[in-house]
Amino acid sequence: MTDSTAPWITFRPEIKVLDCTVRDGGLINDHKFDDALVKAVYDTCIEAGIDYMELGYKNDKKLIQRDQFGDWKFCDEDAMRRIVGENDGPLKLTAMADAEKSDYKTDILPKNESVLDCIRVATYVHQLNVAVDMIKDAHDKGYETTCNIMAISTVGEKEIDQALEVLAGTPVDVVVVVDSYGALNYEQIRGLVQKYSKAMEGTGKEVGIHTHNNQQLAFANTIEALIQGANRLDATMMGLGRGAGNCCMELLLGFLRNPKFQLRPVYKLLQDYIYPLKKAGLDWGALVPYNVTGYLNQHPRAAMRILDGDDRDKFLDFYDSCVADI
Amino acid sequence: MTDSTAPWITFRPEIKVLDCTVRDGGLINDHKFDDALVKAVYDTCIEAGIDYMELGYKNDKKLIQRDQFGDWKFCDEDAMRRIVGENDGPLKLTAMADAEKSDYKTDILPKNESVLDCIRVATYVHQLNVAVDMIKDAHDKGYETTCNIMAISTVGEKEIDQALEVLAGTPVDVVVVVDSYGALNYEQIRGLVQKYSKAMEGTGKEVGIHTHNNQQLAFANTIEALIQGANRLDATMMGLGRGAGNCCMELLLGFLRNPKFQLRPVYKLLQDYIYPLKKAGLDWGALVPYNVTGYLNQHPRAAMRILDGDDRDKFLDFYDSCVADI
Repeated sequence: MTDSTAPWITFRPEIKVLDCTVRDGGLINDHKFDDALVKAVYDTCIEAGIDYMELGYKNDKKLIQRDQFGDWKFCDEDAMRRIVGENDGPLKLTAMADAEKSDYKTDILPKNESVLDCIRVATYVHQLNVAVDMIKDAHDKGYETTCNIMAISTVGEKEIDQALEVLAGTPVDVVVVVDSYGALNYEQIRGLVQKYSKAMEGTGKEVGIHTHNNQQLAFANTIEALIQGANRLDATMMGLGRGAGNCCMELLLGFLRNPKFQLRPVYKLLQDYIYPLKKAGLDWGALVPYNVTGYLNQHPRAAMRILDGDDRDKFLDFYDSCVADI
Repeated sequence: MTDSTAPWITFRPEIKVLDCTVRDGGLINDHKFDDALVKAVYDTCIEAGIDYMELGYKNDKKLIQRDQFGDWKFCDEDAMRRIVGENDGPLKLTAMADAEKSDYKTDILPKNESVLDCIRVATYVHQLNVAVDMIKDAHDKGYETTCNIMAISTVGEKEIDQALEVLAGTPVDVVVVVDSYGALNYEQIRGLVQKYSKAMEGTGKEVGIHTHNNQQLAFANTIEALIQGANRLDATMMGLGRGAGNCCMELLLGFLRNPKFQLRPVYKLLQDYIYPLKKAGLDWGALVPYNVTGYLNQHPRAAMRILDGDDRDKFLDFYDSCVADI
């Protein structure tokens, strides 16, 4: 059926894939994955030829009650090393640090004392100046860095332009288009990736993509981003992630057709570790309430709340309440 | 966040939406929907402003044991009228007739004796000559007609071109791009819709799209098809359809932004009728085995088989068996 031009049959070697299963998935179980699962994801990333694995957050223990969360909200060095040892291989490790939620000056060690390779700074646009400080701090400590401006579907054009201008002047290595609400269709993703790419032109910085699956568009939007030149792609195993979850790793690797990627270990992981979480009741995916919040460009918190309670199947009441909120 | 050009904020009035919940969904329960559900879908189509509803198949009772299937495999006039009466309203009704499985000369009545408005002829490309006869027969009886060439992802370019040339010379009103295996990405859909449109140029015929969700691309591919000019869009409530199911009506109507469409009745239907089917054990959606067959451009029958048995969670074995089959 292929056309005479079929670019998807080839691959772009610059593309790097980042697995954020344990980080984004941790948002639905308070980061309480057991070591066996984290190790299995780590081993799978290595076997599958994935480029980066994100272990969790570097969040501030003074702001958050330590005992209410698993290790992957903090990514202490000893917890990470318990899983990855010295991480002697090509897989690079990342942790995410949220602007205003991270005691980054203290908790992020100099690179030569850590198994981490990259710090990803997550920020809302109004916190950008904090994020810039965090980027500089991590860069000066020797890390590769990214900046992930969250909930971009709620930010005006001019504000995005200004934020990108600021980031172009920082040492950040990658700026990531983040559709936190799963609200964007791929014409919108196309515009954003083009905008980010243009703003970073000549700086050597790369553009990345991180999608959510509220409207079943996470994979499609990731494809569109890579076609538009995004070279850093986030995905999670079976889409495991907050709310509707993310772009599925198994779909993405299938699409990429780069022979360095192996699908077989991913299907083994889904079978042995990820699907059992779903069967045991961990709830994620493009469920109807997430369709509604995605369509309306709203934070998924209302959907998470209804899905946690007895009214989880009352789709109409939920739709009405979301529309009334507008 | 919108760009200065945001075409998705407007709508194209020529677009017509067809609900095929009862027809495609019938493939997973032997068409045994009870009348209350069929009536609820019918009422919802009317309330939601949907243009067409497909009730089921016009299949040959001599080939198929009548008592093993529900009414919607045959769409006898009395069964349809039990639900829709005289169907006095703008909603148009369709039934699908499969090439070589329909006694169309007898079972499809003259239009003035039927509540049906449109006959959709489904065909594999090798059956095209039968399909052409069926199209002529239905057209001569007074119906609007479509031709749905199935499993197009397995058909070579030249054969598609030839089939389209034949169809351009028939009285068919719509030719539908059908991704039966959920195998296509949207660059491929783009190429097909452009090809179909070009072949029908000057004939007044419309192009349609019917997708499956194996790789979570049904909605995205439907959007791409409409951007490329397809004006007839198939969708099902909550994606209910064979295997991975179809493009979700609730997502599509949300995207279209045509004020004639109403989302609220759709969410009510999902809540009261469609999600209860899923809770009761009817199985559809982009489950892992369907991801695998879609990615490999294979018929979903192997996935349906494994999902019916005790090995339904053995994703790795299933992947291995599908790859071994190639």
